[in-house]
Amino acid sequence: MNPQALADLSSRLPELRLLTEPGDLEHYGRDWTRRWTPAPLAIALPASIEEVQEIVRWANHHRVAIVPSGGRTGLSGGAVAANGELVLSLARMNRVLGFDAVDRTLTVQPGIALEAVHTAAREHGLIYPVDFAARGSCSIGGNIATNAGGIRVIRYGNTREWIAGLKVVTGLGELLHLNRGLIKNSSGYDLRQLMVGSEGTLGIVVEATLRLTDPPPASHVMLLALPDMQALMQVFALFRERLSLQAFEFFTDVALKHVLAHGAQRAIEGDYPYYVVTEFDAADERAQEVALAVFEQGLEQGLIADGVMAQSDAQAAALWRLREGITESLAPHKPYKNDISVRIGAVPVFLQDIQALLAHEYPHMEVVWFGHIGDGNLHINVLKPASLSDADFIAQCEHVTQRLAETLHRHGGSISAEHGIGLVKRAYLESTRSAAEIALMRGVKTVFDPNGILNPGKLFA
Amino acid sequence: MNPQALADLSSRLPELRLLTEPGDLEHYGRDWTRRWTPAPLAIALPASIEEVQEIVRWANHHRVAIVPSGGRTGLSGGAVAANGELVLSLARMNRVLGFDAVDRTLTVQPGIALEAVHTAAREHGLIYPVDFAARGSCSIGGNIATNAGGIRVIRYGNTREWIAGLKVVTGLGELLHLNRGLIKNSSGYDLRQLMVGSEGTLGIVVEATLRLTDPPPASHVMLLALPDMQALMQVFALFRERLSLQAFEFFTDVALKHVLAHGAQRAIEGDYPYYVVTEFDAADERAQEVALAVFEQGLEQGLIADGVMAQSDAQAAALWRLREGITESLAPHKPYKNDISVRIGAVPVFLQDIQALLAHEYPHMEVVWFGHIGDGNLHINVLKPASLSDADFIAQCEHVTQRLAETLHRHGGSISAEHGIGLVKRAYLESTRSAAEIALMRGVKTVFDPNGILNPGKLFA
Repeated sequence: MNPQALADLSSRLPELRLLTEPGDLEHYGRDWTRRWTPAPLAIALPASIEEVQEIVRWANHHRVAIVPSGGRTGLSGGAVAANGELVLSLARMNRVLGFDAVDRTLTVQPGIALEAVHTAAREHGLIYPVDFAARGSCSIGGNIATNAGGIRVIRYGNTREWIAGLKVVTGLGELLHLNRGLIKNSSGYDLRQLMVGSEGTLGIVVEATLRLTDPPPASHVMLLALPDMQALMQVFALFRERLSLQAFEFFTDVALKHVLAHGAQRAIEGDYPYYVVTEFDAADERAQEVALAVFEQGLEQGLIADGVMAQSDAQAAALWRLREGITESLAPHKPYKNDISVRIGAVPVFLQDIQALLAHEYPHMEVVWFGHIGDGNLHINVLKPASLSDADFIAQCEHVTQRLAETLHRHGGSISAEHGIGLVKRAYLESTRSAAEIALMRGVKTVFDPNGILNPGKLFA
Repeated sequence: MNPQALADLSSRLPELRLLTEPGDLEHYGRDWTRRWTPAPLAIALPASIEEVQEIVRWANHHRVAIVPSGGRTGLSGGAVAANGELVLSLARMNRVLGFDAVDRTLTVQPGIALEAVHTAAREHGLIYPVDFAARGSCSIGGNIATNAGGIRVIRYGNTREWIAGLKVVTGLGELLHLNRGLIKNSSGYDLRQLMVGSEGTLGIVVEATLRLTDPPPASHVMLLALPDMQALMQVFALFRERLSLQAFEFFTDVALKHVLAHGAQRAIEGDYPYYVVTEFDAADERAQEVALAVFEQGLEQGLIADGVMAQSDAQAAALWRLREGITESLAPHKPYKNDISVRIGAVPVFLQDIQALLAHEYPHMEVVWFGHIGDGNLHINVLKPASLSDADFIAQCEHVTQRLAETLHRHGGSISAEHGIGLVKRAYLESTRSAAEIALMRGVKTVFDPNGILNPGKLFA
C-alpha cells in the first residue's frame, strides 16, 4: 500500500520534494534523542501552505501518519519517526515574510531558525526575546510546538507570550488563521494558545506572527560560586529583590567539570559545589554599584563563596559558555534527561527530596544538575556508565523516573518544564496531569485530528 | 419537573443557599446589558468547590442549564439567565486564600472583586496590573471568563497573561487543577489558557492563582487635545517611541460632553474633536523633561492642539475620570455597544472606513467613540434617541453591526476585543472566526460539557 500511497502523493503534488534514500530517512527521522531507530516512510519537504494542506488530505485518504518536523533539536522524541510515518519537514519554509513597525511583529515561516528570527528582529532595532542554546538549529515552529522556554524566561516568559498569530493546518487539512496579530480578541476559545505546546498533535504550524519588544538596557553578567544548595534560593531572592534580572541560571561542579573538559575556560579558581550565571540590567553606574553591593552582601552572609563580573562582551560570552555549553558537553555520555519544574516557592523542599532520592537511586552514576532556578525548572542529566548497555541504562533510569514522577506529583510539579512530553515522558504524563485532564486532552485531540494523522503516539500512547 | 429538580437540589445540598424570590431572580438574572428579561429558575450561591461540583452533577441529572455568575458587570450578556437556567453565583466565594512571596502569586476565590485583588496585592508591596473602571463590582472569575483587558493592556497585557493556575469545574462536575502556579510546564495542552476567555461555556472557575508584579515607577498623567483623527496614531507613535507608556486612551468630544454633564471637571478650555489620556513612567526629572519635550514636539508638528499634565494625584484622578467616567455617563442613554479591535497597524485605514460607515448609517444618532487605541481596541457606543423604541433602536443598530462586522472581517479585526461574545455578539462571530474555527470550538465545547449544561446559548446559538 505504501508505495502506492507515495505514488499518489507525487501525482497530487508533482512539484513536492520527496526523499526516500536511507540516509535521508535516518537524518530526518530522528531528533536529538537517540533512543529510537528512525524508520519513516518518506520525507516530504513542502514549499507552501497549500502543499502542507494537500499532504494532510493525502495522509487522511491513505491513513498515513505525519510527523511534523523542524530543526529536530527536541529532547523528548516529539519529532521522531520510527513507525513508517511521513516526515513533513518545514525546513524549506524558512523565510521572514514581513515586519510591521507599528504592531512590532515579525511574520515568519515555521522552518526559520530561532537565531535567524533574532537577527531579523535586531535589523529593526527590536528583539525576539526567547533564547536558548539550540538557537542556531532549532526552528520557530518547533519552539511553538513545545512552548520553548530557555534562559530568559525569568524576564520574558515562554514562547507562548510572544505569539501574536498563527496559521495552522489541522488534522483534516483545514487552514486556520488564529488571532491574526490582534492584541485584544475576546471572541471565543483561544485556539492559538491551544496550539502552542501541542507538540504537532493538533495541527501543523505553517506561519507565525511573533511579537517583538525593545532591547533590554545594557546588562552585566556575573558568575557566582555558592557553598551549598541552601544558598541557591537565598541568593536568588537577594538578587531578584535588588536587581532587574534577565537570567539566573545554576549548575553544579559536575556540570562545570564537563563543560571545562569540552573546551570552556575556567573563570573562578577553587572548587565549589554550585555555580550561578546571572545577567541583570546595568544601565548606569548606580546599577553597577547596586550589583556590587548585593554581591558583597551575599559574600558577607556566607551565601556566595566567590564570584566574577564580566568586564567585556567577550568575558560575558565566556561566562555564558559555562552554562550554555553543558548540554553539548554531555552529549557523548548519552545522558538520560529529566526536565522538571515546580513552583519557585516549592523549590527548596523539592530539591531536598530529589537530592535524597537521586543519591539513593543512582549511587554509581554521574548526575549533572543545571537549570533555570528562577523559573523552578531543573535539568537533571544522568550519564551512562561505559559499562552499561544503552538498554540497561535506560531501563534503570526509567525506574528512577517513576520515583521522580511520584515526588513531582507530591510537590505539584511538572514532568516536562520545557522539552515537551513527546515519546520520552509519555509514560509519566499522569504525574503532572490528572486522569480527567488527560481524557479532555484526548477529546480535544479527536476534535482537531479525528483520524489520528498528526504525530500519533506522541504525548499520549 | 423544575420544582422537583429544585427539591432534589436542596436535598442533595441542604446547606446550599438557594434564592427563588422574584426580586432575586431579576437581580441575579441579568448583567449590565439590559436587553433580556431575566427569567432564571433559581439562584444558587455555593460556598465551596464541592457545592459547585454537586450543583453541576445535579444539573446534568435534571438537564438544567447553569449560568455561572460573578459581578454581572458584563456588557455582552454572558451572565444573563433568561430561559429558566439556574444562576450559579460565585458571590459568596470571594476570599483571598493565600499569598506566596517567592512565587509572587495571590490565590483567590472567583467571586472576589478586582479592586479587592488590587488591595490584597498592594498589602504585599506588589500589584495585580489588570485594571478597568468596573473594578469595584466585577469579579475575578468574570475577568477570567472574558479575558478582561482594560486600561493597562499596553503595558501589562490581558488577564490571560496573569493566570498562573486555575481550579475549574467542568460540565460534568469534574474538578481540574490547571497549571498549579508553574512558570514552565510543557506537559500537553494548556487547558488553563483554553478556559481563559471561554465565557463560562467550558467550565466554572472556582479558584485562581494570579501572578503579581512589582509596582511601576512613579508616573505622570497627561491629557492631550488633538486636532483630528489622523493625529491620533501619530501622537501614539511619538509617545510610544520616547516614553514608557502605561496607558494611552482616547475619546471624542461627544464622549467628553457626556462625562462633563455627568459631573467630571473640564481640564482643557476650548473644543477639540479628540482627546487622549496617557500615563507614562516618570521616575525622575529627566523623564519629565523628555515628556515635556515630546509634548512640545507634538505641538510644533500640529499633532497636539493643547494639553495638561497632572501636578498631583488628585489632578491625575480628575484627568482619568474624563476617560473612566464615560461608560457610566452613557448608561442613561441605553447605548448600543460595539467593542471592536484590529491590529494596531491597521487602525488608521480601519478608522477611515468605519467613520464613513457610521456617518452614512447613523446620520441621526449620537455616536460616542473611545477606547484603547494603543491596543487597536475601539469602543463605539450608539446612543438611543428618545424618539425610538428600544426594539426599533436595537434593530437599527444590529443592521449597522452587520455592516461593521463585514468591515472588520475585511481588516482582520475582532467583533469583541474584551467584552466577550455572550448573547450580544453571537450573530457576528463569523466575522471574526472562520467556519472551521467555530466548528472546532463547538467540538471543544462538547468535550468539556457533553450535555450542554454550562451557559448554553452564549458564544454560539
